[in-house]
Amino acid sequence: MKICWYDDDRLGVVQGDQIFDVTAALRVLPAPQYPAGCKAQGDLLIANLDAVRAEIERVLPQAAARPLAGAKLLCPVAQPGKIIGVPVNYADHVAEAKADAATFTTRFTGSIEEQGLFLKATSSLIGCSEPVQVHLPNRLTHHEIELGLVIGKSAKNVKAEDALSYVAGYAIALDMTVRGGEDRSMRKSVDTYSVLGPWLVTADEIADPQALDLELTVNGQPRQRSNTAKMIMYIAQQIAWASTFYTLMPGDIIMTGTCEGVGPVVPGDRIHARVEGIGEMDVDVVAAGA
Amino acid sequence: MKICWYDDDRLGVVQGDQIFDVTAALRVLPAPQYPAGCKAQGDLLIANLDAVRAEIERVLPQAAARPLAGAKLLCPVAQPGKIIGVPVNYADHVAEAKADAATFTTRFTGSIEEQGLFLKATSSLIGCSEPVQVHLPNRLTHHEIELGLVIGKSAKNVKAEDALSYVAGYAIALDMTVRGGEDRSMRKSVDTYSVLGPWLVTADEIADPQALDLELTVNGQPRQRSNTAKMIMYIAQQIAWASTFYTLMPGDIIMTGTCEGVGPVVPGDRIHARVEGIGEMDVDVVAAGA
Repeated sequence: MKICWYDDDRLGVVQGDQIFDVTAALRVLPAPQYPAGCKAQGDLLIANLDAVRAEIERVLPQAAARPLAGAKLLCPVAQPGKIIGVPVNYADHVAEAKADAATFTTRFTGSIEEQGLFLKATSSLIGCSEPVQVHLPNRLTHHEIELGLVIGKSAKNVKAEDALSYVAGYAIALDMTVRGGEDRSMRKSVDTYSVLGPWLVTADEIADPQALDLELTVNGQPRQRSNTAKMIMYIAQQIAWASTFYTLMPGDIIMTGTCEGVGPVVPGDRIHARVEGIGEMDVDVVAAGA
Repeated sequence: MKICWYDDDRLGVVQGDQIFDVTAALRVLPAPQYPAGCKAQGDLLIANLDAVRAEIERVLPQAAARPLAGAKLLCPVAQPGKIIGVPVNYADHVAEAKADAATFTTRFTGSIEEQGLFLKATSSLIGCSEPVQVHLPNRLTHHEIELGLVIGKSAKNVKAEDALSYVAGYAIALDMTVRGGEDRSMRKSVDTYSVLGPWLVTADEIADPQALDLELTVNGQPRQRSNTAKMIMYIAQQIAWASTFYTLMPGDIIMTGTCEGVGPVVPGDRIHARVEGIGEMDVDVVAAGA
């Protein structure tokens, strides 16, 4: 099932070129809580996805449809607790970074295990119909296409062989990045620099997440093209390792690493991103405040 | 005003050795929202702190009191969107790290501006009555006492001279840290490795946040002792700089950097931390799952 948030915070199911309005299915959600709440239980929809899916099946036959074209697609996770990134996870990306120290600096060396996972601020997160805003125009901003995954249930010290059962679904992720020597969790957390879209594809629809083509173009020019089979650390191991440091919560997002071909974008550019089995999306790049 | 969350998610005001139960003042809060909500508006209490304080003043004369001793003090920010850390911000801490490459590694070099701010996962956050749990017993865990601050209103591209007006209040922060070469945002995000407490002191009670003694002992032995006057980058500049990368939201926490004297803790230890004008707190260190 392809689930999206769209337009004015409506819940939708995407089928072909239509979005079916299944907002009514949210009635099965418990009321949001405070001071307990997202920190305690994670994203409300993702934490209750099984119940919501069952209700979606009930309301879908009567749901009104609108064309996918022209819909405002919002981030498919409304309230993630954290966004985790994986560095240097495709050998050809490691090679291109090593070959261009002027752009990538020499601070970040070593294997994934040596460099560690990093965080991106949840305040940087947008859906694909919102533009990436360049806030630091004197710095280099790069695109990084990645397979994004959304954790479905609380995970602590899980084994790699069980890890995929903790995944609620997948989406295309753009880990937009300001190049430089500062901590990744700052350079990659600029407002609008985490894009997740166009929707969440539930895990049951992705037979093998380690066999998906991914590609990205800018203004129609090819930039990135690879397959998730080429990851150095597979996502099951990412989840297992991450869960030895922190508890993964429903709605937590992992951006699983980018492949070779990263490059600059500037205001006026249009990014097109596609991941096999998920879909495709166009994301505009604009000047902040434009 | 000293505001705390305590016991079973009750809201309290601390006066002397008593906590007054002002939970009734929460009635002025708007209902928590979903899918909009903490991402859009930040922490609900902090975003509405002026209204809640006015209501607290009304209910306080009739509030029941309980002894501070024995109360379970929870994190004074219930739903922060992000936790930001400041590296290498006291010269004597920089010197001790440089002198011990075996412990601190040589990966993290350069000024604060060169190294950048880092993030800590909100899932790592606890109050002072919860113990720090050592999840990776084969790794070195260090204590780092810091002045913590809580952002009170949305801040983007603010000037340093205006920045302190965006602060809701202050608390003692422990930026617990696994030593090693991995990204700070992983090593410092272990569950329970961010402690904020014992309560939030509203900004009007701290005349000058850059003139506060801070000290930390472990099992009664002195470890860290300094004054916030010795920060290399003052908190107004921290806020201004951070806000050029990302929007600071109500409830966002900044841990403003630690002073010299950081050192190891192991299960069984008791940390005592004190910051002038805020108060003091004891935090136990235990084995995870103990």
